[in-house]
Amino acid sequence: MPDRHRDKAKVAVFISGVGTNMAALLYAGRQPGSPYEVVLVASNDPEAQGLDLARGEGVASFAKPHRGMAREQHDALMEQATIDAGADYIALAGYMRILTPVFVARWKGRMLNIHPSLLPLYPGLDTHARAIAAGDTKAGATVHLVTDELDMGEALGRAEVAIRPDDTPENLAARVRLAEHQLYPRVLADYIARVHQAQAPLAGAMQ
Amino acid sequence: MPDRHRDKAKVAVFISGVGTNMAALLYAGRQPGSPYEVVLVASNDPEAQGLDLARGEGVASFAKPHRGMAREQHDALMEQATIDAGADYIALAGYMRILTPVFVARWKGRMLNIHPSLLPLYPGLDTHARAIAAGDTKAGATVHLVTDELDMGEALGRAEVAIRPDDTPENLAARVRLAEHQLYPRVLADYIARVHQAQAPLAGAMQ
Repeated sequence: MPDRHRDKAKVAVFISGVGTNMAALLYAGRQPGSPYEVVLVASNDPEAQGLDLARGEGVASFAKPHRGMAREQHDALMEQATIDAGADYIALAGYMRILTPVFVARWKGRMLNIHPSLLPLYPGLDTHARAIAAGDTKAGATVHLVTDELDMGEALGRAEVAIRPDDTPENLAARVRLAEHQLYPRVLADYIARVHQAQAPLAGAMQ
Repeated sequence: MPDRHRDKAKVAVFISGVGTNMAALLYAGRQPGSPYEVVLVASNDPEAQGLDLARGEGVASFAKPHRGMAREQHDALMEQATIDAGADYIALAGYMRILTPVFVARWKGRMLNIHPSLLPLYPGLDTHARAIAAGDTKAGATVHLVTDELDMGEALGRAEVAIRPDDTPENLAARVRLAEHQLYPRVLADYIARVHQAQAPLAGAMQ
């Protein structure tokens, strides 16, 4: 039986693309004192660049295209890979799939997402274009717990980024991404340090 | 008199280019619990992109081209801007100037640099091409204290990045940069938490 007070929490990261937030989580997890480590990178796109980075770093990877498959079935395969990797937590990092309520319920309190806006502002897509169009002076990113309501779970942390008068959505997105890379690993580490160790005695008592 | 046990340490970041490590330091410094904040971004190139990011974020900036000026004079202007901003520490982040020994001596123990190799391997330039040419299986970055010997001060922290069989220096550099963005803010924060507060009683006693 693992000693949760001493072992690092194990995190699976779900991606659909380049995976820079995943890379941030992975490299931060290797710094001294991190309470977690990334043990799996999983994707719905076998061509996702981040999979190569993970494999190169010796981290397990899993990819299963979602096309031609029921949502429940795809979620189940992703979940099985997560369990096989021994992951305690899931970090969504640019994973462009809506998860089924059953899956979300099962990982309640153990699944986080990062969203490129200062939630509750701008859930959904095109967040930076919408913030610029609205005349906002700041944008940012939010890390939140995942619930059935899209981008609406409890916010665990935010990073603000100034919007400049001449900003384009692309320029703004590049700067917000730099802030995201600082936000996500810290919020995940803080959350895990708080929740993972607090749950350990309970988990032990139930076994 | 500032209470160093409560105040955040103030950091000036010197850059010459895009300044993504500077941005990492800046945004990390704004996360809850950070023991430091970035109060100045200074450059020898008025066109350095990072200056715009700093200004947009409301951080003081300073730029002075080094051409046609003695090295001592340019260092002195950079130092004056640093002092004017109230900075206790200098973080070099892609600052492509060799500093004068007088300047280095004055900031001994209070000036850090990040170098894109696993020092003591590959000080100097073209580190990733040299690591690939040598057949190394890993590259990385090192944060170190700045001394008169180029890239040879005490190492405070390292991040390793796997080299892939098909790697180019450019691809490798992009991945190392993601690791650097996790490394530098953590090492700076740890160093400041250790040194800045430890020095406070001494500083108080001497005043």
